[in-house]
Amino acid sequence: MEPIGLAVIGAGYWGPNLVRTAQATPALKLEWLCDLDEARARAVLGPYTTVRATSSYQRVLDDPNVAAVAIATPAATHFDLVRAALEAGKHVLVEKPLTPSVSESAKLVRLAEQSGLVLMCDHTYCYTPAVRKIRELIHGGEIGDVQFVDSVRINLGLVQPDVDVLWDLAPHDLSILDFVLPPDVTVEAVAARGSDPIDAGRLCVAHLSVHLSTGVMAHVHVNWLSPTKIRTTVIGGSRRTIVWDDLNPVQRLAVYDRGVDRAEASSLGQDERHQALISYRVGDILVPALPEREALREVMTELAGAINEGRPATTDGGSGLRVVGLLEAATRSVAAGGALVQVENVIRENA
Amino acid sequence: MEPIGLAVIGAGYWGPNLVRTAQATPALKLEWLCDLDEARARAVLGPYTTVRATSSYQRVLDDPNVAAVAIATPAATHFDLVRAALEAGKHVLVEKPLTPSVSESAKLVRLAEQSGLVLMCDHTYCYTPAVRKIRELIHGGEIGDVQFVDSVRINLGLVQPDVDVLWDLAPHDLSILDFVLPPDVTVEAVAARGSDPIDAGRLCVAHLSVHLSTGVMAHVHVNWLSPTKIRTTVIGGSRRTIVWDDLNPVQRLAVYDRGVDRAEASSLGQDERHQALISYRVGDILVPALPEREALREVMTELAGAINEGRPATTDGGSGLRVVGLLEAATRSVAAGGALVQVENVIRENA
Amino acid sequence: MEPIGLAVIGAGYWGPNLVRTAQATPALKLEWLCDLDEARARAVLGPYTTVRATSSYQRVLDDPNVAAVAIATPAATHFDLVRAALEAGKHVLVEKPLTPSVSESAKLVRLAEQSGLVLMCDHTYCYTPAVRKIRELIHGGEIGDVQFVDSVRINLGLVQPDVDVLWDLAPHDLSILDFVLPPDVTVEAVAARGSDPIDAGRLCVAHLSVHLSTGVMAHVHVNWLSPTKIRTTVIGGSRRTIVWDDLNPVQRLAVYDRGVDRAEASSLGQDERHQALISYRVGDILVPALPEREALREVMTELAGAINEGRPATTDGGSGLRVVGLLEAATRSVAAGGALVQVENVIRENA
Amino acid sequence: MEPIGLAVIGAGYWGPNLVRTAQATPALKLEWLCDLDEARARAVLGPYTTVRATSSYQRVLDDPNVAAVAIATPAATHFDLVRAALEAGKHVLVEKPLTPSVSESAKLVRLAEQSGLVLMCDHTYCYTPAVRKIRELIHGGEIGDVQFVDSVRINLGLVQPDVDVLWDLAPHDLSILDFVLPPDVTVEAVAARGSDPIDAGRLCVAHLSVHLSTGVMAHVHVNWLSPTKIRTTVIGGSRRTIVWDDLNPVQRLAVYDRGVDRAEASSLGQDERHQALISYRVGDILVPALPEREALREVMTELAGAINEGRPATTDGGSGLRVVGLLEAATRSVAAGGALVQVENVIRENA
Repeated sequence: MEPIGLAVIGAGYWGPNLVRTAQATPALKLEWLCDLDEARARAVLGPYTTVRATSSYQRVLDDPNVAAVAIATPAATHFDLVRAALEAGKHVLVEKPLTPSVSESAKLVRLAEQSGLVLMCDHTYCYTPAVRKIRELIHGGEIGDVQFVDSVRINLGLVQPDVDVLWDLAPHDLSILDFVLPPDVTVEAVAARGSDPIDAGRLCVAHLSVHLSTGVMAHVHVNWLSPTKIRTTVIGGSRRTIVWDDLNPVQRLAVYDRGVDRAEASSLGQDERHQALISYRVGDILVPALPEREALREVMTELAGAINEGRPATTDGGSGLRVVGLLEAATRSVAAGGALVQVENVIRENA
Repeated sequence: MEPIGLAVIGAGYWGPNLVRTAQATPALKLEWLCDLDEARARAVLGPYTTVRATSSYQRVLDDPNVAAVAIATPAATHFDLVRAALEAGKHVLVEKPLTPSVSESAKLVRLAEQSGLVLMCDHTYCYTPAVRKIRELIHGGEIGDVQFVDSVRINLGLVQPDVDVLWDLAPHDLSILDFVLPPDVTVEAVAARGSDPIDAGRLCVAHLSVHLSTGVMAHVHVNWLSPTKIRTTVIGGSRRTIVWDDLNPVQRLAVYDRGVDRAEASSLGQDERHQALISYRVGDILVPALPEREALREVMTELAGAINEGRPATTDGGSGLRVVGLLEAATRSVAAGGALVQVENVIRENA
Repeated sequence: MEPIGLAVIGAGYWGPNLVRTAQATPALKLEWLCDLDEARARAVLGPYTTVRATSSYQRVLDDPNVAAVAIATPAATHFDLVRAALEAGKHVLVEKPLTPSVSESAKLVRLAEQSGLVLMCDHTYCYTPAVRKIRELIHGGEIGDVQFVDSVRINLGLVQPDVDVLWDLAPHDLSILDFVLPPDVTVEAVAARGSDPIDAGRLCVAHLSVHLSTGVMAHVHVNWLSPTKIRTTVIGGSRRTIVWDDLNPVQRLAVYDRGVDRAEASSLGQDERHQALISYRVGDILVPALPEREALREVMTELAGAINEGRPATTDGGSGLRVVGLLEAATRSVAAGGALVQVENVIRENA
Repeated sequence: MEPIGLAVIGAGYWGPNLVRTAQATPALKLEWLCDLDEARARAVLGPYTTVRATSSYQRVLDDPNVAAVAIATPAATHFDLVRAALEAGKHVLVEKPLTPSVSESAKLVRLAEQSGLVLMCDHTYCYTPAVRKIRELIHGGEIGDVQFVDSVRINLGLVQPDVDVLWDLAPHDLSILDFVLPPDVTVEAVAARGSDPIDAGRLCVAHLSVHLSTGVMAHVHVNWLSPTKIRTTVIGGSRRTIVWDDLNPVQRLAVYDRGVDRAEASSLGQDERHQALISYRVGDILVPALPEREALREVMTELAGAINEGRPATTDGGSGLRVVGLLEAATRSVAAGGALVQVENVIRENA
């Protein structure tokens, strides 16, 4: 099979990673790196490359050798760039967030569907061995019912010029949640609070409470101001609990067979029932072996696979839309002083 | 100076620690261990002791050799036990929370003031070398302005029969906050959400947002269901940031000279201003040497000192009342779906 | 059954722990704490005790209520104190090392055998849940053949007045090795090197190579000068590898199903054989749940059990003698510039 | 200034890193990647490159655009390849070890000196920010006198076909030691022991004792069989102690102001002197901020600098020779059952 002609759009923070991994993917052929600043694109490609740099997006879209574009530009530009690409008949891989609004995102999803083109979101974490294993553990029932989720993603981060900490970091947590939850569990509502203690003009610290259809609460803490870097997610289940510490290469994932159980006892009164039947399991911890694979290479392979097989990508436009729906609901909740915002309503209003 | 006669009330989970540390404090003389279950009190004292066990609280209060009582019974009993002790002319050390309500707590504070007796809350953490150092760093200005606080206190905890996770664990975080914040900073409002995913009949997971008078948000996460134990507090400041990891004996406290700065630039427009002037400091980390002292021994020493010197204890009834005020506001917020509750109002209504 | 009358001898660094745990052991009755400095003994017992203090060892030995003594005095005094106790018909628990020489240790072992009395060494680590689990894993075959052992025990330690770092710290590692190795594996020879970089008059850093009868090398690093505390032992096996990190309460023991395998291939030449058939396993890690038990309480229970049942203790005089044999061989090796010293010879010469 | 034409020789494990970093170094121009297996070289370069692949070393040496070669082939080939390059008038960067013998290494050093060409060893660790800081701390006197060194470099490593674990891993530790020790401290002798428990045909575990001219002992533990990866070096000093944990990105380097001191007291007798005057410092820990720089890029920059300035590289042939001298002495010591081998003698015999 011929490799798929690809152009990377954007030579900023993330673009170079797309360039590197696209070049390492046999099913793709990198044709262009496009950036408004052509010199920057050239610098990213370096002096030894046969890949072409350009500042003209139109030239890329006009190139019949280009079958797909991978877009890593500021979020505010995504809508126009993705639409133009789809209208030019190109498949699209786009960085998170899909766009800054539900209404725009929904339009792109519809457009891709109508055109029969692949619209894929680069929810990179969903392609890590750790997250795939988490999904497998949850879907396979080894965890039991999910009882709580706690996700912390904090570090001394770049205060972004165009997005706040919610839109910058929470897409990771929310796309992972979307990916690993059982198929019948949906997000119903979101409440969020945040602060901007350095007067940066946008939220630098935020806490989200995500309410699932099962009544379970998932909590996400994102923070640009912490001097220590933490990337930890705990998923508590009725049978086992997963602790994912992404910064611990020796032990990224640990499955704890310990927790609090409550046995059923219909014959007891309400009060007795509660205390009497609580028991504690302190069992072994299992650290599953995970393959060492770079997630972004898997993203590239998935992009090529979806195009070649004419199927939606694992993290398709729909997943991008759901994440944007949560982010928009969270932003509304912050504006409303932390009130609970129904995600359904946000999407319905816009779609 | 004669040692102060002391009785410990309650031989449950915490009482034995009071017994042990009281015996190691030269300024105190332990006279009694009192528990409704006298056999249990005897078992705690062991077969080699000269300390007496009793099941009669009245007998303790009647003993003229007893000048003070240390109460470690369930929270619901605190009001009656503390009041009786104060009315019998005894000084009081009481476990957290002071009582389960603002109104009762306020009554006890007034009663102690009127009687000229010491009413001290066992906010143990405030007597650890780490928390004392944190207070010193904040009050001394080395941290600059406090910009955010994030406190996580999670583990596989005992689901308590009488209190929820908020009233069980958050008193630690809230009493520490009360202790270390600069004198002119007060807590204005609280919002809280929580869940009970094991159907225990009370909150097992909770998140609190504490709004300070400076506009800063402090966040507290307490959780009984986590298989991993975390006790970490990050206090971000405009000059430095403190990371306190209480489970890391090698490095309990680390002071990071790193963060995000925003310079003033009145001549610039709003948008330019924000991005242009943000800069990042990545300086050294200092791990201050801390003395190895058991906090509860310091509590005992402080109790004796306050009694002997006729002064309020460092963590006096007032601090206990403020913590209860926060907890009561948090409980109301949970009931109100996470709405922000003014702490002032809660206290005014009750007091 | 009547509790066994016990006296603790020595109120220095370790004695208070024996006092505390003896008091918590129902099968024992603590009668005396004896120290040349009677005031010190009194201070250790505290003001609330019914246990008697004395400076007269003879008085203890004369007391018919005393059936056993637990000796925690400097090593140089062990021989005389243990001998006197055995001659007075008392069972003995003694701190490590049994005595400072093989010849003295051997005499005590014989004396105990002849008298039909229990002579037990306080090799405390052998009573920890972690070491018991290690023994079970090795003896049960789950680890396969032991291929290497690496033990590191370093910290900022008290430079002892009477012993060097070998005799102070290595008894822990050597008694553990003695306890966990399969019954058919013996120690054949020892080589050791060390240094005294602070001119303390004795070794402060030492490295031991312990050669087992299987050809395997066990290495022990002990160090009083390290500012960081490390207590880690790795036991590599042909099937699995154990990592024991005693300072990590969350994960003291981890069993790695990963390693290097070499398949048999008699048909290949020497060189090809070696490379071609090496393969790598990267399997799961299992962290077995361990009970939370204080090892020293188990020591006390084992002492009482051995006396009551008229059987040798798990860590009997023989194990103490073997450890002293290794230490004496190591000391000779250091004196001989690191030469390999046969342990057998050392024991034969002295015994 | 024109960039220096460079060819990378060897497209195996390390060669691709040289290719990548050479391409990122403006002062270099990568002309060739040479490997006996030309297809492998092509695969490393990838489909987008303008760099040429070849299987002919002679063609590289004949190319007048090539001023320098970077050699990453098996150690046994180094002597012939480096000699040919120097004889062809090319500067040389060569992987560790320089060659497998002192005599060959010494010949290359002389040849380079006579030719006025740069002969540089890729002792990569010497170019890390951490090791540079360590050198600065030691040379600047902040550590005081070095009292002990303990270096552990263990992991589940590739059992190499051509070298044992000593020649594979210990060059890192020994080149670092060579780099950071004060100029007046030299290595005098080495003793080593090792084992091959998997019957791999070469040492898989080894322990080296390196004796310095100051009487200090440095210990190195290298191990291919450990399931856990450890890269830790402790350098104990009379004033402060450095702990370098290369796998801890948050805190690679920590400088401990704690240790054991012994005051001078000429008036006291030998015995009293030792104990009486030992004291313990438990001061702060400082974690210095280190720049985030890739060491191998610094290697490339240093190569270009040395060539352009006509000066020896920081890690020149002499440092490579010293490391090989230590390795050869260690190998002899293993063969001699762990006897101490004078490094001076090894070098004198061969040079």
